[in-house]
Amino acid sequence: MAPNHPATATVLRSDYQKSVAAYWDNHQQDSVNLLLGDVDGLYHHHYGIGDYDPAVLAGPEEGREDRIIAELHRLETAQADLLLDHLGGVGPDDRLLDAGSGRGGTSFLAHQRFGCRVDGVTISEYQVGFANQQAELRGVADQVRFHFRNMLDTGLETGSRRGIWSNETTMYVDLLPLYAEFRRLLEHGGRYVCITGCYNDVTGGRSRAVSRIDEHYLCNIHPRSAYFQALASNDLIPINVIDLTGLTIPYWELRAKSPVATGIEEPFLTAYREGSLHYLMIVADRVGP
Amino acid sequence: MAPNHPATATVLRSDYQKSVAAYWDNHQQDSVNLLLGDVDGLYHHHYGIGDYDPAVLAGPEEGREDRIIAELHRLETAQADLLLDHLGGVGPDDRLLDAGSGRGGTSFLAHQRFGCRVDGVTISEYQVGFANQQAELRGVADQVRFHFRNMLDTGLETGSRRGIWSNETTMYVDLLPLYAEFRRLLEHGGRYVCITGCYNDVTGGRSRAVSRIDEHYLCNIHPRSAYFQALASNDLIPINVIDLTGLTIPYWELRAKSPVATGIEEPFLTAYREGSLHYLMIVADRVGP
Amino acid sequence: MAPNHPATATVLRSDYQKSVAAYWDNHQQDSVNLLLGDVDGLYHHHYGIGDYDPAVLAGPEEGREDRIIAELHRLETAQADLLLDHLGGVGPDDRLLDAGSGRGGTSFLAHQRFGCRVDGVTISEYQVGFANQQAELRGVADQVRFHFRNMLDTGLETGSRRGIWSNETTMYVDLLPLYAEFRRLLEHGGRYVCITGCYNDVTGGRSRAVSRIDEHYLCNIHPRSAYFQALASNDLIPINVIDLTGLTIPYWELRAKSPVATGIEEPFLTAYREGSLHYLMIVADRVGP
Amino acid sequence: MAPNHPATATVLRSDYQKSVAAYWDNHQQDSVNLLLGDVDGLYHHHYGIGDYDPAVLAGPEEGREDRIIAELHRLETAQADLLLDHLGGVGPDDRLLDAGSGRGGTSFLAHQRFGCRVDGVTISEYQVGFANQQAELRGVADQVRFHFRNMLDTGLETGSRRGIWSNETTMYVDLLPLYAEFRRLLEHGGRYVCITGCYNDVTGGRSRAVSRIDEHYLCNIHPRSAYFQALASNDLIPINVIDLTGLTIPYWELRAKSPVATGIEEPFLTAYREGSLHYLMIVADRVGP
Amino acid sequence: MAPNHPATATVLRSDYQKSVAAYWDNHQQDSVNLLLGDVDGLYHHHYGIGDYDPAVLAGPEEGREDRIIAELHRLETAQADLLLDHLGGVGPDDRLLDAGSGRGGTSFLAHQRFGCRVDGVTISEYQVGFANQQAELRGVADQVRFHFRNMLDTGLETGSRRGIWSNETTMYVDLLPLYAEFRRLLEHGGRYVCITGCYNDVTGGRSRAVSRIDEHYLCNIHPRSAYFQALASNDLIPINVIDLTGLTIPYWELRAKSPVATGIEEPFLTAYREGSLHYLMIVADRVGP
Amino acid sequence: MAPNHPATATVLRSDYQKSVAAYWDNHQQDSVNLLLGDVDGLYHHHYGIGDYDPAVLAGPEEGREDRIIAELHRLETAQADLLLDHLGGVGPDDRLLDAGSGRGGTSFLAHQRFGCRVDGVTISEYQVGFANQQAELRGVADQVRFHFRNMLDTGLETGSRRGIWSNETTMYVDLLPLYAEFRRLLEHGGRYVCITGCYNDVTGGRSRAVSRIDEHYLCNIHPRSAYFQALASNDLIPINVIDLTGLTIPYWELRAKSPVATGIEEPFLTAYREGSLHYLMIVADRVGP
Repeated sequence: MAPNHPATATVLRSDYQKSVAAYWDNHQQDSVNLLLGDVDGLYHHHYGIGDYDPAVLAGPEEGREDRIIAELHRLETAQADLLLDHLGGVGPDDRLLDAGSGRGGTSFLAHQRFGCRVDGVTISEYQVGFANQQAELRGVADQVRFHFRNMLDTGLETGSRRGIWSNETTMYVDLLPLYAEFRRLLEHGGRYVCITGCYNDVTGGRSRAVSRIDEHYLCNIHPRSAYFQALASNDLIPINVIDLTGLTIPYWELRAKSPVATGIEEPFLTAYREGSLHYLMIVADRVGP
Repeated sequence: MAPNHPATATVLRSDYQKSVAAYWDNHQQDSVNLLLGDVDGLYHHHYGIGDYDPAVLAGPEEGREDRIIAELHRLETAQADLLLDHLGGVGPDDRLLDAGSGRGGTSFLAHQRFGCRVDGVTISEYQVGFANQQAELRGVADQVRFHFRNMLDTGLETGSRRGIWSNETTMYVDLLPLYAEFRRLLEHGGRYVCITGCYNDVTGGRSRAVSRIDEHYLCNIHPRSAYFQALASNDLIPINVIDLTGLTIPYWELRAKSPVATGIEEPFLTAYREGSLHYLMIVADRVGP
Repeated sequence: MAPNHPATATVLRSDYQKSVAAYWDNHQQDSVNLLLGDVDGLYHHHYGIGDYDPAVLAGPEEGREDRIIAELHRLETAQADLLLDHLGGVGPDDRLLDAGSGRGGTSFLAHQRFGCRVDGVTISEYQVGFANQQAELRGVADQVRFHFRNMLDTGLETGSRRGIWSNETTMYVDLLPLYAEFRRLLEHGGRYVCITGCYNDVTGGRSRAVSRIDEHYLCNIHPRSAYFQALASNDLIPINVIDLTGLTIPYWELRAKSPVATGIEEPFLTAYREGSLHYLMIVADRVGP
Repeated sequence: MAPNHPATATVLRSDYQKSVAAYWDNHQQDSVNLLLGDVDGLYHHHYGIGDYDPAVLAGPEEGREDRIIAELHRLETAQADLLLDHLGGVGPDDRLLDAGSGRGGTSFLAHQRFGCRVDGVTISEYQVGFANQQAELRGVADQVRFHFRNMLDTGLETGSRRGIWSNETTMYVDLLPLYAEFRRLLEHGGRYVCITGCYNDVTGGRSRAVSRIDEHYLCNIHPRSAYFQALASNDLIPINVIDLTGLTIPYWELRAKSPVATGIEEPFLTAYREGSLHYLMIVADRVGP
Repeated sequence: MAPNHPATATVLRSDYQKSVAAYWDNHQQDSVNLLLGDVDGLYHHHYGIGDYDPAVLAGPEEGREDRIIAELHRLETAQADLLLDHLGGVGPDDRLLDAGSGRGGTSFLAHQRFGCRVDGVTISEYQVGFANQQAELRGVADQVRFHFRNMLDTGLETGSRRGIWSNETTMYVDLLPLYAEFRRLLEHGGRYVCITGCYNDVTGGRSRAVSRIDEHYLCNIHPRSAYFQALASNDLIPINVIDLTGLTIPYWELRAKSPVATGIEEPFLTAYREGSLHYLMIVADRVGP
Repeated sequence: MAPNHPATATVLRSDYQKSVAAYWDNHQQDSVNLLLGDVDGLYHHHYGIGDYDPAVLAGPEEGREDRIIAELHRLETAQADLLLDHLGGVGPDDRLLDAGSGRGGTSFLAHQRFGCRVDGVTISEYQVGFANQQAELRGVADQVRFHFRNMLDTGLETGSRRGIWSNETTMYVDLLPLYAEFRRLLEHGGRYVCITGCYNDVTGGRSRAVSRIDEHYLCNIHPRSAYFQALASNDLIPINVIDLTGLTIPYWELRAKSPVATGIEEPFLTAYREGSLHYLMIVADRVGP
């Protein structure tokens, strides 16, 4: 067993984590992510931003499905690009961490852009295998590697990371220990970029639509305040915060009309439109000793 | 407008609170609580404990529904009695608070037992009206009163309470400000009793069944740890903690077979049986200055 | 003495506060702010953003000074407009607070835009007088009022504010008690907008240029981390954070070439260019009970 | 020197710890614990619970002393059994820690019940020797081992424990570092059981009787609140709290009449009866990362 | 009933406080404090510092007792003088608080020195009566007043105090709420002086001698660390800390040989000599808003 | 590269630290410290205490400069002696740490006095070299060693230090991580002595004179409160606090008249005299586990 593949019991420490891992291991054939990834071999596990081209819907019946699929994929890639735009100055000798790396899409984009080493961690053994296979196919297996590790306890070296991102993965873990781990991994002045859905404390508690999403994905969407409190407790200091909610709604509207709709589109649209859920990007720097 | 009936805007401070209030205001005809309350005029808004009598199911078809209703009601009253058993020494000159008083069931039981003044608060104006009407009917309106107030900000006098309880209402609010308010209201040495469902941190995050319940009731079930952290932060120190999960399962089994089943029985049974939800009683004393 | 004008000893509680008040009371004739304010009667006490028109420098000698003055003033107004753009939905019945209101410029802009009541507080009696006189001249003295009060202890009513801003004033006070006061004043869901210079923790400690600015203005520029820690501790949760550093450098470049240059331009330009000082806008919502 | 027997200076880090160790090292012949242990070879260092059989007093003069000794021992074993009843599911491959293991009584009972590895730590070298000798005699020296270690710094492996208990030993140490160590040692979901005397914050400060006990045993009985605050700070979350005070009074009444009475019986009985001391069992689970 | 004499139940909020009050109420004839106070009408409730004159022992048998009494009293007055030396600049319009004022000795000395208003609070009604009678006799009843109030909740006006002292009274209360109250009472820049016995954390836990003193006085001597943690939490910042242990030992040696010895001299001498107890003076300033 | 000389990037982790290191590396010829050190080979990097002999000024013109230099040096040595007087009992087998050791003056004095091992750390490579050369010259290179290390992360062994001091070096770092490191390094009961300038919270914020000093030395003088909060958070408990301000003013008065005056004398004298800066000695013990 390779050093990046420890015993399952070490990685999955609670029943909840086992359930989440099982969920992703068993969604090997989930049509959305695979179909979209097949477009250009970048398999994303996150949503998209930006206006969609109305022509994909208006055009001829024939090919419409493929056009929608390609358009959704384009919006997802746009989201990953926006995330990477905010990683700050990254050089070829730096090392990055993709926390909750899924099938590896954002990791490959990061490597393309910065030419540096990228490590991804995920608790789904299936995803580790899939993504490492992609790395082989792309000929970057020595630069982009995926590990069967818990992002709360990555086993990576202290101070080894110039940058870390989490792309819609923080709703599966508690933020305080997560950011304690990121604080440990980042070098002084290192950067963290987070894109996430978070529920809106300003409107009060958890809305029905948010609980519906939690149930669907077996996750626990955090309130917005939890992010800023956990960051502040761990010397991760924002330099940029952008509310992407308005930018992501078109993606969901297109997806609701697409062949890959799963039914979770409506709760997302309801939550975003009623203001009970934000789609937020937080860019923060690691300060302190 | 009486002093116990302030402007709606003061009591309902967020969209979420307005939604919760609307939920209860609009469930005026909810068959479960009303049907059960009609048995003996004690209208509960909580679940029951103890084994049910199998005879209520096994007996003749005729009257079975009534027998089940009566049995469910008996188990709910047993729960309220257990709660009151733990309120400690309460004298006729003491004052109690029912935090989230619903239609008033536990308040009336408390008055019967201790002969003292009881105040109930709820953010449902309908419930305030219903419960005060009951108090009139029972001839105790000078001793048991219900107020349209937020339990996070009751407006009651500092140090005025010998005892406070919350009977399955804490999942609608944040615990830290709630227990700050209870700390303020309780006299030194005063007692707080809480019965609540809380999700089990030991198994990890929020399970599907728990999210399903959250969605159904528009609530936010807290992890077990949140209770003990919020109590410790507010000088409320446990003297008794009892896991009632095993005791409440029969109630849900009976309810699942009853004419008042709403569909939420299955998530409850799943959550209790898989260990992702506890039904817990916490008894704590107010210490400190 | 009006209720908005308490005894000096109550407002200025430490020698430091007395020194700061004296500084502003004695800069009644400071050419920069007055000259710029004379352009259109909006007297600002903050810096500007956006590119300046090179024509103001390149044009004929005659009138150049006036052109520069007008241009600097235009950039300062642009800054105040950006701030007000982020105050969120404000209605005519809402009330706002300008914390550290100087000669009242931003307050008048806010009233123009939202048509609502604005209160400004400052510890300079001279500024209170000047700004209230402006309010009289503008015929809005019943809507826009300035008070001789400490922003750490405004004496305003709890929960009375829909929005609060501080426009380059937070470097005169400790952030924890300041944001505790803002938390107290804001209604649930109320908004706070802060524009400030803060020193950059990522580069480490306080640079020489930053200390030079501190000495010049008798202030204490806080590290960036201090803002996010104090906000998180006081239920003020960011929804937008924008680094305005690049946008403010042109203003300082123009000012350095202007007749109102005071010598402090060089430390500002050094600090901004070397990255030891940020010019930051933080937009946060008041959550919690 | 074996790895479980480090240099004295490492284990006993303060004068106070040296005094406590000396106390137990020098009480090698203390009649109470030895006499009672001789009954069946289980040497306890804690008190008992449950009603005693009045016949042991009422019976013939001859043999009364032995009957009393045996009865006290029976009640002490009942206490240890109750403690072990709450350790939750423990399998033969799990590892347990007896924190403050004395002469090893509870450790041997635990091994008998669960068939698993048990480590005990104590700062009395005499006790280590005595208990390890018992382990040899019982033929379980490979499974039950005692170490000359400070329970604040056991040197045991992180995450290695399924369960930990402290049986009347927490009054010798500060609770915050103790529970930080237990948090470190327990695996996720591991269980901690504590039986302890704690003084009652509800009645206020430390009573005379409690100080008398402190003086006698050179210990520092903590207030009840200190337990719950230290547990909450260390991710140890109660699932069961039982007040054993009423159950332990008979033990002390019998002991007061026994030949092994030491004079400390009266302060205990006074403290329990006046309510200034609780005899409490706390059962808590280790949550968090 | 005067405003400074509220209902007993308000002042004595726990059984412990009632016991402490009863202790002092019932020690009306305690020979030590009364005999020493009779020397010059200054009745102290604290110990002394400085070397005693060996002549008081060596001199003729006749009058020795009186000489010893007078010498002990002189040393106690020296202690009170040292305390007052550190109160900083106090003017005739300032107001002081004697927290735990006993029979009023230090309060009268403070008034003599500064000519300002002094309030003393104590939970012994007997002491309130005795001290106010002394104030009448001295003709300063309009300037020096004693109140039946709990020092945790004095009812005095916020920010009304230039200085506060506690002379050996802090071992009867929890320090966090005590210093929260002092923080509330002191004006910005006000001063607090504390003389107290505290146990020495450096040697570890509570020694036998310290528990013996706790038992004797029904008090709870705090560790040294508790003082500095509670001060830091309440914006009370030391400017002077002096270890008076060496200076107080002669007082106890003389007292041990005096006719007013009570038996508690030996534990004090043991504790001071073995280093388990410090006699400490802390001088701190109130900072913050 | 010796183990005490790690890669520069490890020691200097931020731009700020690099600037500070560069400052000291480039002040190799700074006349003050070198000239004074040449007197007797003890090169100090701190100021002095005590009255100067007026004869050094009043005497003949010839030799006056040398007399002043020698007198300033004498006062600096007196300061270092006072610091060492408070280190408590240190034996020849103990180890000490000089945190921010400059050219090594205090380290050599400590070794002379206690005969034990002393390690000094500094982020100036020039200073490391200079001080180690001095150690060679004095023949104590095996006992007194200087390391190119950051005092926030010394790399020294946990619990290895009997005593630590910082002599005017704490204004270059954040106190919380500094004292966390000292807590880690000190054995239980170990002692820390700090001499530092700190600004006076009682007067409020940072004065002009203090900012002027910050600018000159590229440092960040902390408020007094920051010291006591950071100590309390790290189990470092004061036993002695002395305000040395009055004792250091003569040194500055003499230095202002000396040939080594640098212009910073006036801000120091202003700050000390107006009360905005304290020169403080804090003596604290390491408690806790």
